[in-house]
Amino acid sequence: MGNLFSLTSFGESHGPAIGGVIDGMPAGVAIDLEQIQREMARRRPGQGGVTSSRMESDEVEILSGLKDGVTLGTPIGFIVRNHDQRPADYDHLKDVYRPSHADFTYQAKYGIRDHRGGGRASARETLSRVVAGAIAKQVLAQVGITISSESITPENQPPLTDGDTMGALVRCTIHGVPAGLGEPVFGKLSSQLAESMMSIPAAKGFDIGLGFDFLNVTGNTSLDNWTVDDDGNITTSTNYSGGIQGGISNGNDICFRVAFKPIATLMQPITGIDKQGNAVVIEPHGRHDTCVAPRVLPVVEAMAAIVVLDNYLMNKATHL
Amino acid sequence: MGNLFSLTSFGESHGPAIGGVIDGMPAGVAIDLEQIQREMARRRPGQGGVTSSRMESDEVEILSGLKDGVTLGTPIGFIVRNHDQRPADYDHLKDVYRPSHADFTYQAKYGIRDHRGGGRASARETLSRVVAGAIAKQVLAQVGITISSESITPENQPPLTDGDTMGALVRCTIHGVPAGLGEPVFGKLSSQLAESMMSIPAAKGFDIGLGFDFLNVTGNTSLDNWTVDDDGNITTSTNYSGGIQGGISNGNDICFRVAFKPIATLMQPITGIDKQGNAVVIEPHGRHDTCVAPRVLPVVEAMAAIVVLDNYLMNKATHL
Amino acid sequence: MGNLFSLTSFGESHGPAIGGVIDGMPAGVAIDLEQIQREMARRRPGQGGVTSSRMESDEVEILSGLKDGVTLGTPIGFIVRNHDQRPADYDHLKDVYRPSHADFTYQAKYGIRDHRGGGRASARETLSRVVAGAIAKQVLAQVGITISSESITPENQPPLTDGDTMGALVRCTIHGVPAGLGEPVFGKLSSQLAESMMSIPAAKGFDIGLGFDFLNVTGNTSLDNWTVDDDGNITTSTNYSGGIQGGISNGNDICFRVAFKPIATLMQPITGIDKQGNAVVIEPHGRHDTCVAPRVLPVVEAMAAIVVLDNYLMNKATHL
Amino acid sequence: MGNLFSLTSFGESHGPAIGGVIDGMPAGVAIDLEQIQREMARRRPGQGGVTSSRMESDEVEILSGLKDGVTLGTPIGFIVRNHDQRPADYDHLKDVYRPSHADFTYQAKYGIRDHRGGGRASARETLSRVVAGAIAKQVLAQVGITISSESITPENQPPLTDGDTMGALVRCTIHGVPAGLGEPVFGKLSSQLAESMMSIPAAKGFDIGLGFDFLNVTGNTSLDNWTVDDDGNITTSTNYSGGIQGGISNGNDICFRVAFKPIATLMQPITGIDKQGNAVVIEPHGRHDTCVAPRVLPVVEAMAAIVVLDNYLMNKATHL
Repeated sequence: MGNLFSLTSFGESHGPAIGGVIDGMPAGVAIDLEQIQREMARRRPGQGGVTSSRMESDEVEILSGLKDGVTLGTPIGFIVRNHDQRPADYDHLKDVYRPSHADFTYQAKYGIRDHRGGGRASARETLSRVVAGAIAKQVLAQVGITISSESITPENQPPLTDGDTMGALVRCTIHGVPAGLGEPVFGKLSSQLAESMMSIPAAKGFDIGLGFDFLNVTGNTSLDNWTVDDDGNITTSTNYSGGIQGGISNGNDICFRVAFKPIATLMQPITGIDKQGNAVVIEPHGRHDTCVAPRVLPVVEAMAAIVVLDNYLMNKATHL
Repeated sequence: MGNLFSLTSFGESHGPAIGGVIDGMPAGVAIDLEQIQREMARRRPGQGGVTSSRMESDEVEILSGLKDGVTLGTPIGFIVRNHDQRPADYDHLKDVYRPSHADFTYQAKYGIRDHRGGGRASARETLSRVVAGAIAKQVLAQVGITISSESITPENQPPLTDGDTMGALVRCTIHGVPAGLGEPVFGKLSSQLAESMMSIPAAKGFDIGLGFDFLNVTGNTSLDNWTVDDDGNITTSTNYSGGIQGGISNGNDICFRVAFKPIATLMQPITGIDKQGNAVVIEPHGRHDTCVAPRVLPVVEAMAAIVVLDNYLMNKATHL
Repeated sequence: MGNLFSLTSFGESHGPAIGGVIDGMPAGVAIDLEQIQREMARRRPGQGGVTSSRMESDEVEILSGLKDGVTLGTPIGFIVRNHDQRPADYDHLKDVYRPSHADFTYQAKYGIRDHRGGGRASARETLSRVVAGAIAKQVLAQVGITISSESITPENQPPLTDGDTMGALVRCTIHGVPAGLGEPVFGKLSSQLAESMMSIPAAKGFDIGLGFDFLNVTGNTSLDNWTVDDDGNITTSTNYSGGIQGGISNGNDICFRVAFKPIATLMQPITGIDKQGNAVVIEPHGRHDTCVAPRVLPVVEAMAAIVVLDNYLMNKATHL
Repeated sequence: MGNLFSLTSFGESHGPAIGGVIDGMPAGVAIDLEQIQREMARRRPGQGGVTSSRMESDEVEILSGLKDGVTLGTPIGFIVRNHDQRPADYDHLKDVYRPSHADFTYQAKYGIRDHRGGGRASARETLSRVVAGAIAKQVLAQVGITISSESITPENQPPLTDGDTMGALVRCTIHGVPAGLGEPVFGKLSSQLAESMMSIPAAKGFDIGLGFDFLNVTGNTSLDNWTVDDDGNITTSTNYSGGIQGGISNGNDICFRVAFKPIATLMQPITGIDKQGNAVVIEPHGRHDTCVAPRVLPVVEAMAAIVVLDNYLMNKATHL
């Protein structure tokens, strides 16, 4: 993903490692490796209600692109080893498609799949995103752009029966984005944010500013009218647009939401199917989170950071 | 947009023409030009409540890539002339930023803009999308994939005062998509659909399957459980996922929604601002639609067609 | 072609028009349309020994991206109509593959082809390159970069029998390129120049600096040793490297050569083959150039201009 | 590099590791890891005349994309550790630009560089290419495409004084390529081969078929005239074109040459320059090859394999 600042990632959940390559890194930026580890810690399993069965003590190893902690401008390769591999734990899933997982679709696409822990479809792949995002955040901080997010309890959230799971609504805000980022037609900043958020496992909805709530207002009551701030700059008194108009940032905070479906792995028996069409009961195994939040927050922020930094760099070419 | 089947578009609303280039067109497909015109007619202004001031009798001219109505496999260049140019109608907007339009953001990005009819930010650019989409649809029809959409009246839609505008909710369904389309991580089919839909002017939200309504159910009650259909194929008895799991199509209908904000051009006076920060009252001019629906339906379908055809072609490379 | 400043082109020789879309145009640059026409005139047939049968009075029409002659930063769409269409002239070639033309390979690739005047494989497609290149040159001129080229008579050039054709060797020099352009591994400036030059019809060889002549010297005698110029800047006393080291410009003139094969359309009878494998004698038709030079010079310069401008813009993202 | 089958690489010569990510790998192909090691062994230093100072016992570690030796269709991440790191050996080069190396251009581009062993500009980065190429070769072998290369002694090669170096001319042949691969205008197969070859360190020239020797013949004497082979297939009796016409393969062997400059690191004192413009004599250090051949042969073949496989996959999308 990305045009100038881009991430190429790899890795199956139970292969030797996951990792990635960051291209287009601006040169001469000091990177704090501990901050990367802190972002990774925010993503660690077991924060969404109960402790996951997998104790990950993940450490990222930066393989290139840095010298004495400063970026060289060359690609940053990195890996995170997969330590807690217990392949036998997954033998019962070898020929079974779980409901609402990617087992069936991977098999349909590739004719082969790594059934251990979801393989490439595992949420563990988001570690690569968090690493790249943690680096992007540090670069953005140098130009005054920061990102925050929170999980919002939905209004109509149903009660959880024992071992059941629930969805999550995440609100993210990007502060300090200068006006002018984003391309006007196909590369709208809002499109790129939507694409990046919808690429996060379990994401099923995205909106920006009032978003779906624009259906409940009229044009007259939802225009972002102009005002002049204390510094004499033109701005708006409301931010219904969520900081983007015509696909391009207007200098306000960029505000968007992402809706995630309930985790499809329950702590209850579920019924899968084998290739011959036979129902297969899958007993709960280990322990799993009941909700992607709050673990997904650093992932959302990471994707936002990558998109904004990419557009920040792209925008340098708008003028000679 | 697009990887293999791609559209490059150009054109300002009041320049000589808008148009585009379609790359990656499969060779040997017969194209019905009248069907392109019919899709363009569906997008014509004046269908959203009242008649727009602009009477467009748009005709597409195909400039390359076809011989005797059959695709050559080479790029298809096309243009649609802008006939109804009345630049003087826009003189009053030359130095004014309208609220909730792209005037300010274009100026911030480029330091220059074409103020006539919104320039590149005009919804007129969607004509290029409709042309490319109409061609993509014809190709998809040959492999049994069809696309339909409808505008849904929102539950809480407020009453319209005189000259006011409203948002729109569009539901789109893609039928006949084989299992296996889409890339698993950054190029998820759902991400690509989100990106393409959010690139449509005025789009502010996207969700797929249950989407935001996943927040109102639990995991246990929203799994797409397996069944075996009459032909002995494995499928699901529900389609909460909207036809995509892990970013890859599962063979079910792909169902998504797009939320559009109210049209920002009202038939009421609105207040803009000039570069010096002075408020400028803009009187209504001509006549405008009150809602992007139903005009936006062929645009939504066009973007869906381009994305699905691109992924259909991409998927051919999954195996040797 | 191109990453930030890019050209998408279309058009068959005897279709309605050829043209293209330039993306990534820096905003606010004044463009002289007459200069574009002058570059097109340099490319006109009939300058390579004899007059071609086709009298092209080509005029480019700019369809977007300019306002009052100044770039808007949005895509520049343009077309050149194909006026001199005499399809019947080509009926004898409908089912015949000419030797050393693209007839056979297009048919093999697409299963269909436009046999009239070479279709998409016609050298006429280079008009789009010249238009884009003429615009790129004007942008480069603003930052002090200029491009020149010349045709060199090869040492061992054989005498031409009546109606025969010959190859061409073109030397191109890019002046004023700052040090630091180009990517270090896969996007070397030299690789990009090679790719762009080898994409010109009939190009069969490319080298840079001493190029193939590096085989005739040793390391000791071909190092570009350092010196300090009158302004105190570090430079080299020779330019064997051709202005690029490690894929990145070093501030010297960039010097490369392109070798073109003899024009494959002779003014002599040649023998083609039909799909059934029967030999078909093709009599000479109209009049053709004997050599791609000097017509190819503006094409070479155009490709160089596009590559250098693209890298100039790319390089802006090397630092924050 | 690459569109569908692509390699993203990373790594400095004296950082922790070099490596890469292969995207677009077809699923279900068995990969022989020993064959990768054999290709890496062909690239090992010390084969070009004398033994290099660096004894590399390189081993590739595949981190993803394979299960039980069979490709999953997901990205293949791999690394090769840099074991023989002696940074102190390079302290004398910290502030010195060697002649005809990339020291100066990297510093000009990035404002920072890794001076140890050439950093990212080291020929060691070609290990990543060889790994990806070795995998591509195995895929190509399944569809009957093979690649071979050889080093040709140039006719006018000068005698080598003690510690001097020389250039290399490599001829590469790709056998079994079906007709129809390559894109007709900007993505010509010949352009892509040129780009990929010119991205190899020290490459300064590329030609295909007769290449530069087309300057020594006329059109009449260099047409590839048609014949019908024993199986009744249309082919040519000569292959002056080098297997590509109009940018698309014609089914003949693809034959091209690459010219490399003499190695810029001599076993003689050379004179560099520091940032202040002072001349600095650099004494020879360790032992170095006198010529990039034969070490560069597996690199040339690797790049050819990546390009051809990418185009093989791309061509699948030419028809529905």
